[in-house]
Amino acid sequence: MDKESLIAALSPDLKRIEEALSAVQASQVPFINEVSHYILFAGGKRLRPLLTVLCARLCGYEDPKIYDLAVLFEYLHAATLLHDDVVDGAEFRRGRRAAHNLWGNQATILVGDYLYARALRIAVEKGNFEVLDVVTSTTVLMSEGEVLQLLNVDNTGLTEAEYEEVIFRKTAALMAAACECGGIMAGVSPEERKALYEFGRRLGMAFQITDDLLDYLGAAEETGKGIGTDFREGKVTLPLLYALNEADDPDRFRLITLLRDLEPSPETFREACRIIERWGGFTRARQRAEEEVKGALSALSLFPPSSTRKLLEDLTRYLLVRRK
Amino acid sequence: MDKESLIAALSPDLKRIEEALSAVQASQVPFINEVSHYILFAGGKRLRPLLTVLCARLCGYEDPKIYDLAVLFEYLHAATLLHDDVVDGAEFRRGRRAAHNLWGNQATILVGDYLYARALRIAVEKGNFEVLDVVTSTTVLMSEGEVLQLLNVDNTGLTEAEYEEVIFRKTAALMAAACECGGIMAGVSPEERKALYEFGRRLGMAFQITDDLLDYLGAAEETGKGIGTDFREGKVTLPLLYALNEADDPDRFRLITLLRDLEPSPETFREACRIIERWGGFTRARQRAEEEVKGALSALSLFPPSSTRKLLEDLTRYLLVRRK
Repeated sequence: MDKESLIAALSPDLKRIEEALSAVQASQVPFINEVSHYILFAGGKRLRPLLTVLCARLCGYEDPKIYDLAVLFEYLHAATLLHDDVVDGAEFRRGRRAAHNLWGNQATILVGDYLYARALRIAVEKGNFEVLDVVTSTTVLMSEGEVLQLLNVDNTGLTEAEYEEVIFRKTAALMAAACECGGIMAGVSPEERKALYEFGRRLGMAFQITDDLLDYLGAAEETGKGIGTDFREGKVTLPLLYALNEADDPDRFRLITLLRDLEPSPETFREACRIIERWGGFTRARQRAEEEVKGALSALSLFPPSSTRKLLEDLTRYLLVRRK
Repeated sequence: MDKESLIAALSPDLKRIEEALSAVQASQVPFINEVSHYILFAGGKRLRPLLTVLCARLCGYEDPKIYDLAVLFEYLHAATLLHDDVVDGAEFRRGRRAAHNLWGNQATILVGDYLYARALRIAVEKGNFEVLDVVTSTTVLMSEGEVLQLLNVDNTGLTEAEYEEVIFRKTAALMAAACECGGIMAGVSPEERKALYEFGRRLGMAFQITDDLLDYLGAAEETGKGIGTDFREGKVTLPLLYALNEADDPDRFRLITLLRDLEPSPETFREACRIIERWGGFTRARQRAEEEVKGALSALSLFPPSSTRKLLEDLTRYLLVRRK
């Protein structure tokens, strides 16, 4: 299925998700709504609520209440984006100025707290105790992952297992939870619930590895600066990690020197990309993402073939070839 | 009951609360435990978990599991302290360096998120759906209150109702929830539950008004700088608010000028205190705190007299006369 057909197939659900997002009871504090609106309606893909809705439907749950529950995952995601922006000192987010550049760090931290609190509130209002169990376990994992990521900055000795731990916690855990909660609402068996979790986890791993690849390969077009954000911030992601493992001493030392450059130029970045390419970093990262996609599809195979399963499969494959 | 007798009467519970705090499953990330430990064991009064334990006992619930649940309120409180420290740029907290001065804003924000997530996790593990309902409603209120407080900086036109709204959300709502959840665990009637909430709310209001008074009157001894933190940060609290309402034009304008001084000296602060004193700001704020204490005691009177009720009454009265 090509991108246009996929979007067309998803559009009725995406429309309902937008409606559900807008219908969440606004804060009594207008300023909070202003900042929340900016981050919630900034062109996100709505991947997380979509996963909840589709996984619920895959398991036979068709109640439209699922949209009202599903948006909690977009709220959680938006909360982490706001805190990430402050922590990373990011200048832009999805092509627009990052929230903290518009409203300051203080307000951005506190509105992040609000969105997080609101997400949990939605879980209570629209979910059940099992949903809350999953969601609160996930937020603990996520917050630990954010700290781990911070501690790993400039750690050129990062192992693949450590990298995996961080991306599982910061990305895959939430997608796994979004899928699992769809199943919970549908009242699935423990086995199916585990399969949905595994599907979401591996899809999330593939998603983040692809994101990390795009941060290198899409840097020129996207940021207009020609330097990947992760590289500039000293974040060691999979392409760099593979290259550091494989390279000979001169190339490894050169890569480390380039990474530690506090004011990297586009040429610094291009040289790093050439070294990573030379030692197969991009190719191997791509292969690794493909393996995760295979794992995700394999988890889905527990469920009987259906149009919803087909849609989830197409969505999973698309995440690998997306350009942003 | 004098302070020493009160502390002696509370000490068995305080000991159990410390044990329960230490027993919460540590994070797998040692750095998180280091920061968490610093903020959780910084000499806090443990007022919030104490309220949960005593309110549960007041209603006949003696199961020691209550300690494990009660500490969630200390976790929530610690999370807000970490984010407050970053937002306020505070230098000190309880006589020690504020966390963000030791570990940086980034780690402080993220460990705050962790403590918040952990608090909700405790609510799932040790509580029930009703507890989660109360806790998540409260965290929404609290996060909104923090934003309101930020928006109110330097607002010399703040009304008493607006001030009340902020202190209810940032302090009283959590104490009310701590009391209410004690009742929920004891399985009380809706009427008793409402009374516990009201007790906690009014105690919380008294607590915060006294805190705001101490920020003026205790400034010299506590910070060693002779300038109240709220005044320096442009926060309009009750003593100032009353004085601004009552003062003649010259004194009001002078107060506003002093408040807007970006580098206030001890003499700036002393002059502001003299003007507030002249227009009865401290006296009226004190009266207001006493009214809240009366309200708290009146809410307690729904419950039959007992040693636990007596202890809660003594604790409430003590909060008014405390010096820090």
